[in-house]
Amino acid sequence: MADTHKEIAFNAFYMASPAQAWAGLWAHPESDGLEYNTIKFWTDLAERCERGLIDAVFIADILSANDVYGGNADAALRAGTQSPIMDPFMLVSAMAAVTENLSFGLTANTTYEEPYLLGRRLSTLDHLTNGRVAWNVVTGVLESAARAIGMTEQVAHDRRYDMADEYMELIYKLLEGSWEDDAAVRDRAARVFADGRKVHAVNHQGEFYRCEGIHVSEPSPQRTPLIYAAGGSARGRRFAGRHAEATFLSSSDMGFTKGVVDGFREEAVKAGRRPESVRVFNAATIVVAPTEAEAREKEREIQRYTDEAGNLAMFSQWLGVDLSQYDPDEPIGHIESNAVQSIAAQLTQIEGDREWRLRDIGAFAKISGREAHIVGSTEQVCDELMRWVDETGLDGFNLTRTVEPDGLESFVDLVVPELQNRGAYKTEYREGTMRQKFFPEGGAHLPSDHPGYGYRAGRATA
Amino acid sequence: MADTHKEIAFNAFYMASPAQAWAGLWAHPESDGLEYNTIKFWTDLAERCERGLIDAVFIADILSANDVYGGNADAALRAGTQSPIMDPFMLVSAMAAVTENLSFGLTANTTYEEPYLLGRRLSTLDHLTNGRVAWNVVTGVLESAARAIGMTEQVAHDRRYDMADEYMELIYKLLEGSWEDDAAVRDRAARVFADGRKVHAVNHQGEFYRCEGIHVSEPSPQRTPLIYAAGGSARGRRFAGRHAEATFLSSSDMGFTKGVVDGFREEAVKAGRRPESVRVFNAATIVVAPTEAEAREKEREIQRYTDEAGNLAMFSQWLGVDLSQYDPDEPIGHIESNAVQSIAAQLTQIEGDREWRLRDIGAFAKISGREAHIVGSTEQVCDELMRWVDETGLDGFNLTRTVEPDGLESFVDLVVPELQNRGAYKTEYREGTMRQKFFPEGGAHLPSDHPGYGYRAGRATA
Repeated sequence: MADTHKEIAFNAFYMASPAQAWAGLWAHPESDGLEYNTIKFWTDLAERCERGLIDAVFIADILSANDVYGGNADAALRAGTQSPIMDPFMLVSAMAAVTENLSFGLTANTTYEEPYLLGRRLSTLDHLTNGRVAWNVVTGVLESAARAIGMTEQVAHDRRYDMADEYMELIYKLLEGSWEDDAAVRDRAARVFADGRKVHAVNHQGEFYRCEGIHVSEPSPQRTPLIYAAGGSARGRRFAGRHAEATFLSSSDMGFTKGVVDGFREEAVKAGRRPESVRVFNAATIVVAPTEAEAREKEREIQRYTDEAGNLAMFSQWLGVDLSQYDPDEPIGHIESNAVQSIAAQLTQIEGDREWRLRDIGAFAKISGREAHIVGSTEQVCDELMRWVDETGLDGFNLTRTVEPDGLESFVDLVVPELQNRGAYKTEYREGTMRQKFFPEGGAHLPSDHPGYGYRAGRATA
Repeated sequence: MADTHKEIAFNAFYMASPAQAWAGLWAHPESDGLEYNTIKFWTDLAERCERGLIDAVFIADILSANDVYGGNADAALRAGTQSPIMDPFMLVSAMAAVTENLSFGLTANTTYEEPYLLGRRLSTLDHLTNGRVAWNVVTGVLESAARAIGMTEQVAHDRRYDMADEYMELIYKLLEGSWEDDAAVRDRAARVFADGRKVHAVNHQGEFYRCEGIHVSEPSPQRTPLIYAAGGSARGRRFAGRHAEATFLSSSDMGFTKGVVDGFREEAVKAGRRPESVRVFNAATIVVAPTEAEAREKEREIQRYTDEAGNLAMFSQWLGVDLSQYDPDEPIGHIESNAVQSIAAQLTQIEGDREWRLRDIGAFAKISGREAHIVGSTEQVCDELMRWVDETGLDGFNLTRTVEPDGLESFVDLVVPELQNRGAYKTEYREGTMRQKFFPEGGAHLPSDHPGYGYRAGRATA
């Protein structure tokens, strides 16, 4: 008889690139990273996830080269980390075709994607997956993306979120407001596919966007896909509090994480929503084996294949600071950069006071400070995951890609059954759309306390 | 022993909508049109095509509602014809996952899609399909699309093609010019995924587009996907003559078709290319059965389900004239519209001199004047297809969607084996990418007489 514990959710956190957060791991002899540009890579991943009742494949994205480190993309390209990269939306239909219940989180950028066209893409994928899709709303972080798209520089941070707020309004008008629920009649006998009187033109004339016309896709199972948004800044958290149904962070620190979890729920409340209307995920790297010794050995093996410059390139992007300007052996304390000092402080908090060097950031280690780093036996890993949830209020984890497929397979074969034994993991998928799987008490569509709800065609406020 | 005849190519011509050129056919009891928004519809279609050695599924597209007829989309929505509609790119990976050799022709619009982002989508699909993808370049025709995308009106016709020429230049710079052939090293032992010194930043500062940065996807099997472009106007034909490797028209008239085929080849020659470097397809509606009587009966059955207003809405879009302003019983001769008169002239040429009424256009019939309409026994259909090719120089046909799956299944079961007996149809797919299947004498990449060829990284002209 299983104990009961809050059910923990898990996403397989991917990018359409050879490697991601742990730079260079594609080169490991057992890694499938070189196959990232084949369909089989993605359908195998989807089947692996569904076998383990994983909630979703979440595909993060950057639109352009990571060229903060050294002013060029060389380190990222060499390590295959986030570069090269493909379009996440293109991967979905193949993965959906081989699964029944797995969901898909897809990143798309409001600053660069045209809203009318993105609206159609979202509807298309929600149709094809039968409602198993989430949109991870991002506003962009790379200067290189702005230049690639033909701008001279990035839109300023807070203004990007102002644009994104208006973007969401337009998306709601299209996906919620254009078609009434009974507009798609689909009546063979009457030979009426859709009743044009119940399909309404959007007329949006905003500060950043204009759009006149009907949404060209009929309503999909969720209408608006489940919305993900992360936000480290105050403005980003405000955006997420208003729109997000799921959010995520990357932290190795439980106290910090608890603060973020509470903060997101407070932001939701400020936006007039229930605190439990946002599910929060933390990034987690899990290295598991039947025994702790085996797990530690596996970790060392992974460590051997981690690319130091590639990891520093990742940190340079996250911090917005070119770390190539410093000597890797220089103690971090000597570097005059607030961003770098905040890492040093985090490292010290976790690992104790030590003279940290830049190289320590570049090496694969739990000292990275960038997520829950959990290494051990099946029981140890399960203990730690449950402790994280109990102490922080998290709903789940984004599983970092390490050496795959072993990383995820070990999780599915070892951790999942043990979490099930402990009553902390589902034993089958729930029925319904991604939104219903996330919020069993709710329906397929945006709930009534969500700002998109009021735009639904036929409602008084539409 | 088979005779020999020029091998005829066939595309299944689709849109991601319940019905297309023959409006309303989704309502036929045996039609699968209602399922257009499910993955199974597309994977079944792909498997059906591959069973018949069909060259490609070609997915046409419009970005917005067809609202020319009556000033709203009601007729199109009622008939489910081109409206509602989904994004073609999203369908591909599922179809590619269940096939080995089938290719995919995908429509994307240069006026509204951002080039850097479209470039990544094209690379992504060329990777996932292992080089089985074509891009059908369109510049848009609907005023409603311009308004949906936030413009006050469409860019003028010829200027759209000026933009498209520059757009292609930028796409070539990205897909051909950014990565040298040996930039993606993929060397596990050396732990080098890609050599940044061989990945070059594009710096495009044009009249319409700007882009600075590397292409973020490594080279796909074809680099630039096979390029389709159709063009009825002189400017459109000039564009196709320069860029297209395949083009298509819709005509019921062999003499007219021969003129168009010759014209496209002349345009290619004017652009410095070989005349045979462009393959030309005509639209064909085929209704086939073991006997002519059965085929005629099948045609009448299809006819019963055709939607008159839906077809007039289609014609209104093609002509740019709102045909709802005229009485359907009015003789066409009385209508003062050059576009309508050109249809009347075409009808008279095919069917003889008769007093045509607008209603005749709206009804399903070979009098539509819009494609090769071939109804009959297997032998009759094969005779007619071969006569078309012999008399016009066509390379193949875009098979119009009628009542599916029967339309395509009958073609595969009856016409394909008979064409094979006559030596006019392949008996297996050729090896290689879509470009190599189309041009067996060439390679996977753009040929040396194509304007995109000179942009390849490492070439003198790059």
